[in-house]
Order: sequence, then C-alpha cells, then structure tokens
Amino acid sequence: MDELELRKIMEDQVMDGLKYFYRNISVDSVIIGYHEKELKVLLQRPQNFQKWGLPGGYVFKTETVDDAAFRIVQYRTQLDNLFLHQFKVFSNPDRVKDAGFTPEIYSKITGIKIDDDHWMFDNFVSIAFFALTEFSLVQPTGSAYLEECCWWDINNLPELLFDHADIIKEALKALKIFIHHHPIGYELLPEKFTLPELHSLYETILNKKLDIRNFTKKLVSMDLITKLDEQRNIGAHRSPYLYMFNKERYDQLINEEEVIVI
Amino acid sequence: MDELELRKIMEDQVMDGLKYFYRNISVDSVIIGYHEKELKVLLQRPQNFQKWGLPGGYVFKTETVDDAAFRIVQYRTQLDNLFLHQFKVFSNPDRVKDAGFTPEIYSKITGIKIDDDHWMFDNFVSIAFFALTEFSLVQPTGSAYLEECCWWDINNLPELLFDHADIIKEALKALKIFIHHHPIGYELLPEKFTLPELHSLYETILNKKLDIRNFTKKLVSMDLITKLDEQRNIGAHRSPYLYMFNKERYDQLINEEEVIVI
Repeated sequence: MDELELRKIMEDQVMDGLKYFYRNISVDSVIIGYHEKELKVLLQRPQNFQKWGLPGGYVFKTETVDDAAFRIVQYRTQLDNLFLHQFKVFSNPDRVKDAGFTPEIYSKITGIKIDDDHWMFDNFVSIAFFALTEFSLVQPTGSAYLEECCWWDINNLPELLFDHADIIKEALKALKIFIHHHPIGYELLPEKFTLPELHSLYETILNKKLDIRNFTKKLVSMDLITKLDEQRNIGAHRSPYLYMFNKERYDQLINEEEVIVI
Repeated sequence: MDELELRKIMEDQVMDGLKYFYRNISVDSVIIGYHEKELKVLLQRPQNFQKWGLPGGYVFKTETVDDAAFRIVQYRTQLDNLFLHQFKVFSNPDRVKDAGFTPEIYSKITGIKIDDDHWMFDNFVSIAFFALTEFSLVQPTGSAYLEECCWWDINNLPELLFDHADIIKEALKALKIFIHHHPIGYELLPEKFTLPELHSLYETILNKKLDIRNFTKKLVSMDLITKLDEQRNIGAHRSPYLYMFNKERYDQLINEEEVIVI
C-alpha cells in the first residue's frame, strides 16, 4: 500500500470512523526497551506538533483490545513476537480535553478538517499495555502524520501528550509486579550469560539493590537457570561462570495457568 | 426516591442513554467474600431470566471507570469502604451477541421495548474489577429489574451470563497476585487472631498449602503482625497465641508507592 492510499484510508476512517471503531475507547502501549542496565520507552511525535505520545489508536469493532494494541505496536516496531500485557485503564473524564487537543491542532497535524463535535474530540477511555523487549532489536517506524518515532531514556522523557506520563509511571510499576510472577530475560540477554548480567536486568527493572546470592539461589532452585561448565574470560582473575535458561522450564512457567512466584 | 421514580429515570437513561453514558464501555465487579476458609462471589439474577451475572453497568461520561464500578457495587452491597481493583478488560467482539441478549429478553426483564439496533445491543468492552470483603458484612441489595442478589460458593457457581465465568476465573488469579503485593486480612479476621486463622485465609485464596513457619516468619519480619502476650483457650493443651496487625505498618504498606513483596 503506498502513502497516498494509506492517507485515503485514514481520512475515510476519520470521517466515517464509527462504522469501524468503538466509540470512546483507545489503546496505548508502553514499549519498554532494556539494554545493558538501561530502560528506554518508545515514543512518537506527530508532525507539526511538539509533544510526544505513546503508540496508540482506536479499536476496530471486529477485534479485541489486545488485538488492537498488538496491531498498532507491530506496525511501529516491526516485531512480530512482542508480548503485550494489559495493565490498567485510564479514564479521567477530562483526559482528552485537558490535553488541549483541538480540531485546529488535528488539522495542522493531518491536513484533515473536522468539527469540534466530531467523535474524536469526545473523551476516550484508554486501555494501556506494556511490553518488555531488547531495544536494539526494534526498528522504530514512522507512519503518515508522524514526524519521529524513537527510544527515550526512562529517566529523561520529553513533554508528553494527554496522561501519557502517568501511563508510563504505572507501566513501570506493573512491570515490577510482573517480573515476580513471570520469567523474563530469554529475549533480553545473550544465550549464555553471567549471573551479574541477569542480576543487573532485575535490579534495573526493580530499580533497587537485590542480594545476588539469594536471587541466584531462588532462580536455580526453581530450575529456571542452569550453571554451565564454561567460564567467560573478562580479565585477570575474573572469569565468571556462564549460565543458560532452562528453556523447557522457562516456557512451562510462562504458560502456567497457576500464579507462580519468582 | 421511590421505585416508580427510579424506573422512570432508568427508562430515560435507556432511551436517551448516550447523552449520559459512554458507548461500548461497561464495568463488571467480582466481589469476593471470605469467611472461615470459604470464598464466595456476589451474583445477581434479573427478573424473568434464568442466568446470573456480576454486578455491573454503564459508565457516565462525567466519572472514571473506577467511580462507576464503585457506584454500582456500593448500591448492591451498601458497603462504603469496599476497595475495588481494576484487573483486566474483556473485549471479545462477540461477547454480547454470544450471550443471546436480545430485545425480546430485555423487554421480558424490564418491560421496556427497544429495537435491535439500539446501542445496548452493540458490543461492550467490559472493564473488570475485584474486591475482597468479609462476606457476613455485606447486605446484598436488589434493585429494579433484579429478582435475586446473593452470595454463591466459588466452587459451585450457577449458569452465568456473557463471559462472566471467565471474568470470575481471572479475578481469582488476579487476587492471588494481589496478595503477594498488598497486605490483606485487617477487615477479614477478628482484631486478635491466631496464626492458623491468618494462615487459612492465605491458603484459601491461594488455593494451595503454605508452610506455616516460613509464612509466619515473613509476616513477622515485615513487622506486619505482632505476637501478643495473650493466648486463646480452645481446649485441653490447645491455647495458641494471639496476634494483631500492626496497623500503622499495614497502612504504610497499603499506601506504599513502591512495589512491595509479601
């Protein structure tokens, strides 16, 4: 599909949107990227506009909200295996109004003129998702109406649209709870990793110090990681043992119906 | 407000509902009642209808989804201090259609005739909440159009409307995660309780055996419970020590911004 066709479809969707979309519902996704002790978040900026926002959009009446979030994020990241987790609904009655999102601004961004009683300026209840990924794997992709789409350091975010700053804050909290009940790391670390590497991943997400001995003991006792008979040589007198995830056990815990505790 | 006035308001809301309510959004609440090793859930049955459902309804455009859930549940339980937790959004595109909820059935229940292209027969994305309460504290209350509203044993549920069986299953899973990160028990146990009483509460919710020694050690080390210099006499050679929640610490953990692990 070329740019012009895409624009035509988008215009049709805006003008006659309620044929396709649920009214008053949107999805927003916080894509959290990890790489060597850093967390980043994927943000986008519309053309002719100075604020940044999360990748998000409307929900087709023929899909679930999870499908919608996946569809939109997949389009931005080109990743097919990103696992999105619903974590909270944001529904302040003034969240759209407070953002100062007017037909003038909309027209500046898209070139499409609509009245201020259009459904797009009604309030939206936003269903929010997060995903965790190795950020070097993602190729952020723009689209019609977007000027930029890129990673921002979690500790140094730009000015954000709507209540997106709050959505990001809550996503980080939900992620902290998530990692106590789901194995992580398989897509985030090299196939063979050292304990300090795994430990750093958890410390970065939890944003606090963890006792490395207890931490390791727990993951080994769950049979989640296996010590290899192999060391990495990183300098004189420093050759930490390498570990691997026990993938069978890892997948079993991911698919476990019961609540697990890590 | 008398019954007739209430019915008049409800009819107006149905006929002219989109003035008041968001379209395509509903809330449903799973009120979980605990009492002496049993879990129950609060269900309601419309008049002239055989299936049961969760207390739920539409969201006014002037409130948050959390406000809506609280308003509806408060009306059913008469409890003012029930703390509801958003846990998941249910959005199968056929969830209303699959339930066979037709204008004929609606008219049988309410006496109100509406067309099948009415917004009420459009699909609804349901935002689900759970709350945990001591079930003997709740006075289930009916309302216009409801035949019954009462507690059902979690292991012996009646036939349920829509995807409510799935919503209940997911609520129990969310509750299991919740109790690892939030203190519970203050409203569910007597002021002074024995360790087996507290232990049973956790075992009932988690639906699995817990080592009582480790469990106790953890709660004491968190300063969440305090051993009293007082025993309960429950028979020859059986006089377990009594414990109390350290309320200050309990409230501190409830209001903690950081993620805690219990």
